[in-house]
Amino acid sequence: MAIVLGDNRYGKAETRLVRVVRDTERHEIRDLTVSSSLRGDFAAAHLDGDQANVLPTDTQKNAVYAFAKDRGVGVPEEFARELARHFVDDVAPVTSAQVVVAEHRWERATVDGRPHDHTFVRSGSETRTAVVTAFDGGEHVLSGLTGLVLLKSTGSEFHGFLVDELTTLPPTHDRVLATSLTVRWRWAAVPSDGYDPAYEQVRALLVARFGSVHSLALQQTLWEMGQGVLAARADIAEIRMSAPNKHHNLVDLSPFGLDNPGEVFVAADRPFGLIEVAVGRDEDPPVPEAWRDVAGFV
Amino acid sequence: MAIVLGDNRYGKAETRLVRVVRDTERHEIRDLTVSSSLRGDFAAAHLDGDQANVLPTDTQKNAVYAFAKDRGVGVPEEFARELARHFVDDVAPVTSAQVVVAEHRWERATVDGRPHDHTFVRSGSETRTAVVTAFDGGEHVLSGLTGLVLLKSTGSEFHGFLVDELTTLPPTHDRVLATSLTVRWRWAAVPSDGYDPAYEQVRALLVARFGSVHSLALQQTLWEMGQGVLAARADIAEIRMSAPNKHHNLVDLSPFGLDNPGEVFVAADRPFGLIEVAVGRDEDPPVPEAWRDVAGFV
Amino acid sequence: MAIVLGDNRYGKAETRLVRVVRDTERHEIRDLTVSSSLRGDFAAAHLDGDQANVLPTDTQKNAVYAFAKDRGVGVPEEFARELARHFVDDVAPVTSAQVVVAEHRWERATVDGRPHDHTFVRSGSETRTAVVTAFDGGEHVLSGLTGLVLLKSTGSEFHGFLVDELTTLPPTHDRVLATSLTVRWRWAAVPSDGYDPAYEQVRALLVARFGSVHSLALQQTLWEMGQGVLAARADIAEIRMSAPNKHHNLVDLSPFGLDNPGEVFVAADRPFGLIEVAVGRDEDPPVPEAWRDVAGFV
Amino acid sequence: MAIVLGDNRYGKAETRLVRVVRDTERHEIRDLTVSSSLRGDFAAAHLDGDQANVLPTDTQKNAVYAFAKDRGVGVPEEFARELARHFVDDVAPVTSAQVVVAEHRWERATVDGRPHDHTFVRSGSETRTAVVTAFDGGEHVLSGLTGLVLLKSTGSEFHGFLVDELTTLPPTHDRVLATSLTVRWRWAAVPSDGYDPAYEQVRALLVARFGSVHSLALQQTLWEMGQGVLAARADIAEIRMSAPNKHHNLVDLSPFGLDNPGEVFVAADRPFGLIEVAVGRDEDPPVPEAWRDVAGFV
Repeated sequence: MAIVLGDNRYGKAETRLVRVVRDTERHEIRDLTVSSSLRGDFAAAHLDGDQANVLPTDTQKNAVYAFAKDRGVGVPEEFARELARHFVDDVAPVTSAQVVVAEHRWERATVDGRPHDHTFVRSGSETRTAVVTAFDGGEHVLSGLTGLVLLKSTGSEFHGFLVDELTTLPPTHDRVLATSLTVRWRWAAVPSDGYDPAYEQVRALLVARFGSVHSLALQQTLWEMGQGVLAARADIAEIRMSAPNKHHNLVDLSPFGLDNPGEVFVAADRPFGLIEVAVGRDEDPPVPEAWRDVAGFV
Repeated sequence: MAIVLGDNRYGKAETRLVRVVRDTERHEIRDLTVSSSLRGDFAAAHLDGDQANVLPTDTQKNAVYAFAKDRGVGVPEEFARELARHFVDDVAPVTSAQVVVAEHRWERATVDGRPHDHTFVRSGSETRTAVVTAFDGGEHVLSGLTGLVLLKSTGSEFHGFLVDELTTLPPTHDRVLATSLTVRWRWAAVPSDGYDPAYEQVRALLVARFGSVHSLALQQTLWEMGQGVLAARADIAEIRMSAPNKHHNLVDLSPFGLDNPGEVFVAADRPFGLIEVAVGRDEDPPVPEAWRDVAGFV
Repeated sequence: MAIVLGDNRYGKAETRLVRVVRDTERHEIRDLTVSSSLRGDFAAAHLDGDQANVLPTDTQKNAVYAFAKDRGVGVPEEFARELARHFVDDVAPVTSAQVVVAEHRWERATVDGRPHDHTFVRSGSETRTAVVTAFDGGEHVLSGLTGLVLLKSTGSEFHGFLVDELTTLPPTHDRVLATSLTVRWRWAAVPSDGYDPAYEQVRALLVARFGSVHSLALQQTLWEMGQGVLAARADIAEIRMSAPNKHHNLVDLSPFGLDNPGEVFVAADRPFGLIEVAVGRDEDPPVPEAWRDVAGFV
Repeated sequence: MAIVLGDNRYGKAETRLVRVVRDTERHEIRDLTVSSSLRGDFAAAHLDGDQANVLPTDTQKNAVYAFAKDRGVGVPEEFARELARHFVDDVAPVTSAQVVVAEHRWERATVDGRPHDHTFVRSGSETRTAVVTAFDGGEHVLSGLTGLVLLKSTGSEFHGFLVDELTTLPPTHDRVLATSLTVRWRWAAVPSDGYDPAYEQVRALLVARFGSVHSLALQQTLWEMGQGVLAARADIAEIRMSAPNKHHNLVDLSPFGLDNPGEVFVAADRPFGLIEVAVGRDEDPPVPEAWRDVAGFV
């Protein structure tokens, strides 16, 4: 059996970009981390060290900055799409390109009681994401977020589960439920209201469903969240969620003569449960190319 | 010269506590990481392995959870003070105790357009801190924050600096200024409005001054921020700030025929400037014991 | 189009285990982080909140510890295989199980010039990994490593690449080449010499090839490394490598009247190149199930 | 009470430097992260925004690279000393300078059974450190290390400790003892054998003492380690150690009908004990200036 070159890709990861829009005194900023990765006719680069078909990753970085100036950053999905299309359309050996954008969010600072023109406060660890995979004839567009940390202090049960000889977990009818969500959704069409409002709507729906569903398991909560998003937006084909179950263990205070009716918890680091769920539509199955190389389950 | 035991302390670091207040349907949560450290008569533990004077660090952890239930968490400074006093007052060999609290902040989630009773969204990486050092006869109380990330897209200059033969930096009259603040302030008295409102006021002042000061250097901005806080609150004795200068470097787009008038920046990871400044009052000098062991400059 | 539940799995992530073998005075330790994930008939858990088919993730953690005692840890691949088989064979609703083991390596400490019986020094950030995916009728076994950081101070070129209007990178005939490797390989058969010696052989081959190949691109180096491993071991079906190109940029010292012939470099954090390559055999194509859910490209 | 500027300093943090020595075919590399911080007459920079006395942090970075080429890196302590002296001696407003060097260690790769001339493998997370504080008339030199992770699988007890009403920890006569050491020692004189051999000797002593001392508490082990170093080297004035007690908790396997005589442990993340100890000489007390600003206790 001959040894053969298999799947391969290459690109520039984590190019850091801050774009300031200063057409008026009221500046806007967009703060992105951009990664690109190219597939195509790169066998000679591997087998013979011949780089004739290889656009340097340094050039991919330059493209991020030049496009940011020349065309503006716009919304993350559109910026990713323009870059990905450029690599496929303008670089002959490239057959597909994936661009991943993470947006770090800022709010306007309050100065003298008013939002300031050019001062901003970083919003936190929650990150909006966009992944565009472009090829001859089209693109797959994923929107998403990571680091959305949610907690319910009640309204969560877990019981009636399968018990084997290694099971020691007691059933519970009231527990803390907490997670740090990574979610991505694939668009069946460009949203007519634009990616920015659509993002806000989906994020709000995810939070609201997490809160309103009386949870019998994190699996059920995730299903209801995904189902809610797809019911609200016909232009979303599927949604995938990866949700660590960040355990909050009730502390046993009985040695100190204290009861603990759901008041004092250890927030544990590890291990954690990890629940991963996809919700789709029966006539629009997942598209493997859209999800290929996206880290982990989502 | 005989070899001698010098300064020593021990404690439990990073006890994770989530306290739920569920007296009504509208829950409250407080999410803290608590560390304690004790000084006292522990020579025998080192020299002879005799632990008779050593309260286990496991017991210090128990104290965090028992106090959280029994007395409630209240505000971080008060919770830290109660714990620190307990160690000094109730554990005979202990002569001083330092308790460090980091509060991870949550906001109420919006469900059906209203703040939800028991669902919360993590606010981000910004952390409120309290450090109480207790000893026989009193305590030093530090309030503070870490991870407050601020950015100005204009209103910052840097020129007229010292130039030697190794200096290549060009002067600038318009640059991005960004930092991730760690700030601590020492109280001369317990704030009459309470630590929680005082914290919000100081944080708002820091953000507002960062925005309103036309900056000639990060040093100047920090001084103005500290000066503003001390001018507003006579009960704060001193304030210390540690501020990385998170460089945003203008990208040279001239090879692509593009100018770049303050629009496209690389957000650099390393190296970074690091500016550290204390602001105090001339008749109330720093108290070394208050700041001992607090990581770094602040 | 009805909204439907798609792919889903769940498990316990990052269970930390240290196993001490103390049959003699000369102890052995194995330090593992273990994650398990199950697929199967879990629709009711999502759609109805019915957990009758759901073995708690807490039980999966218990299995790690009970197996570690009862059967011993053995080599990572075998421990992973036993756990994965248990979940598939003994838990009725489970149709496939993936167990991921990361081994943190320790060396025996030197005391009085001799390796000590029960004192160990952690070897560093390099981690050995095993991934076993079990199903009815078999398993896929992947061995691997992550965090193997390699650097060549010469013997690396990069030129003759594709140049477009956004390319500014100068060609080079001598550069520093550095990477932090993540590698996984799939076994066509259980290695007759055992997984432990096989791991050492593959690791040594990867390092040696990285050193001995005069590199015209990281792509070429990776191909040669993968080709070398498959040539040496007929029992390995395919190997996948993910290699950040950790850029070391030559510092321009000419403003200080100094030349810099490959001596002083900035080790850059971000962005970085990212090269990903699979090497296989023409009659033994990749098995998608083996690689599903393994983070990233490999 | 007037508001006044207090203590202040500024500098460049985490400049990444890789220095290749290529005088012969057998290259040497030294991989450092360098931070500098200056104190002096900088009041005007704060109060008036006047930068005339401020050497840019960018220039401090340039100094790192220019010195690395011009004078070579030598050993970390000497490189730090040269830089610190330069800032104090050559930059008029500077009264003291602290330079912190962290060395990331590499080993020569083995290729064809021999150490390779120009290929290196990163040794791991253990880092050697040097801190030099220079002022008019002298310097304080600290050597040290961080991230040295040690574990004993037996030979450690903890009992006879103080018990109060919150104590639940059972005494133990056999436990796992593990730590990740941060150690720094101050030199009374330049070591006659050179900083490199001295470093290796001290590191070996620390490891050996950790192994050979039958531990009644981590405090006792640390004292014995420090005492051993000072006994071996008259040129070391004092040593400070910060040692997390990385708890390894015995798993209760009795629900599964298994005993667990010191064989299966959970390696816990948080909380952890934290023991900090200084060992010195009775006629050579600690020098506060040497330790000022060094993060944490050490």
